[in-house]
Amino acid sequence: MKIAVLGTGLAGRTLAAALHDAGHEVAVGTRDPAATRARTAPDANGTAGFGTWAEAHPDIELLALPDAGRYGEVLLNVTSGDGSLEAVAGAAPAPGTVLVDVSNPLDFSGGFPPVLSVVNTDSVAEQLQRAHPQVRVVKTLNTVNAAVMVDPGSLPGEHHVFVAGEDAEAKALVTGLLGDLGWPAASVLDLGGIRAARATEMYLPLWLALMGVTGSATFNIKVVTP
Amino acid sequence: MKIAVLGTGLAGRTLAAALHDAGHEVAVGTRDPAATRARTAPDANGTAGFGTWAEAHPDIELLALPDAGRYGEVLLNVTSGDGSLEAVAGAAPAPGTVLVDVSNPLDFSGGFPPVLSVVNTDSVAEQLQRAHPQVRVVKTLNTVNAAVMVDPGSLPGEHHVFVAGEDAEAKALVTGLLGDLGWPAASVLDLGGIRAARATEMYLPLWLALMGVTGSATFNIKVVTP
Repeated sequence: MKIAVLGTGLAGRTLAAALHDAGHEVAVGTRDPAATRARTAPDANGTAGFGTWAEAHPDIELLALPDAGRYGEVLLNVTSGDGSLEAVAGAAPAPGTVLVDVSNPLDFSGGFPPVLSVVNTDSVAEQLQRAHPQVRVVKTLNTVNAAVMVDPGSLPGEHHVFVAGEDAEAKALVTGLLGDLGWPAASVLDLGGIRAARATEMYLPLWLALMGVTGSATFNIKVVTP
Repeated sequence: MKIAVLGTGLAGRTLAAALHDAGHEVAVGTRDPAATRARTAPDANGTAGFGTWAEAHPDIELLALPDAGRYGEVLLNVTSGDGSLEAVAGAAPAPGTVLVDVSNPLDFSGGFPPVLSVVNTDSVAEQLQRAHPQVRVVKTLNTVNAAVMVDPGSLPGEHHVFVAGEDAEAKALVTGLLGDLGWPAASVLDLGGIRAARATEMYLPLWLALMGVTGSATFNIKVVTP
């Protein structure tokens, strides 16, 4: 499948590399490919600059957003929550495209822990779905860090990831992509329509608190039933 | 210990009975004890009216809110989120009292699923702590249903409950009460100060979505670490 990942941060590049390793054709979309490629100094969070990463991943194309939108049969939005609407608008996905939304609306303007910039009666995924009614938005993977996204087996036993969206076929396709990343189908819980994206975005404050408790961002939750 | 439970709903009476069975002296606080005792018809959700329940639990006193506030060394707020400030104000807890807040700010006025009436930059627990600065508020148990609250062993294996609050001694006391209900100390995760109550209250949309997925309110989450 041809997949375009919007976003050049740690989660975006981790997903791009893992989907490429799983056999997909992958491109990364960014506003200004030349400027992105020139970023060779480490990022603020200590990860390698994107240019350095891109040199190590020559099979993954770096494309301007409109080209990424044309490239991808599936688009992954892995930009920041407050940049998501603009990034996806830039990619201008064709009708029917599956748009996998991995974003979280974290607002760090008041410091840490962040609050949410969209919450309670709306979500980033719903905003994207409203802005692109012909596109099939599926929310997923926003409840785990990049390492867990592409290596769920690094955590012991059963644990869960969620999908939410209006289109059953699109959710099945995304469940398949999650399988390519190592998520057993039984670990993918379908929360229902796109409104349920609120539930996973509003889980982020608990995720952040649990990161503090566990001392690591590499964890997940298991839904335990009788 | 003398414990007063504010709230006569399913969670309140379940906690009152379980804490009584664990050997504590327990009273239930309500605005109008006579009217509450007269409720013998089943509630809207099909549970027995409180009067019927009270007849079956003669060792648990039913007190007006100010009397309940005087009675309890520990108060449990198990009222609805939007009734919590008024109920606790009615109980007028003495300085130093440990106030265990089990409430959730669910607003069903727009139908199901509810939205939250307090969210993101505030929480019911923080409102209670601000209204009663001399009281030691501990948020807990609002992430599981009444059955799981008092019988965590009904779910297999390890799963977790959270505490949040400013006072370490109060959190230790609450962890002891959770132990009386069957929660091993290792299953109680301390999320930090009272601000972390936002995290557990904002988990409710995910809890509601998971109730839909699992087909039951009797479930919980386990935090899975490497």
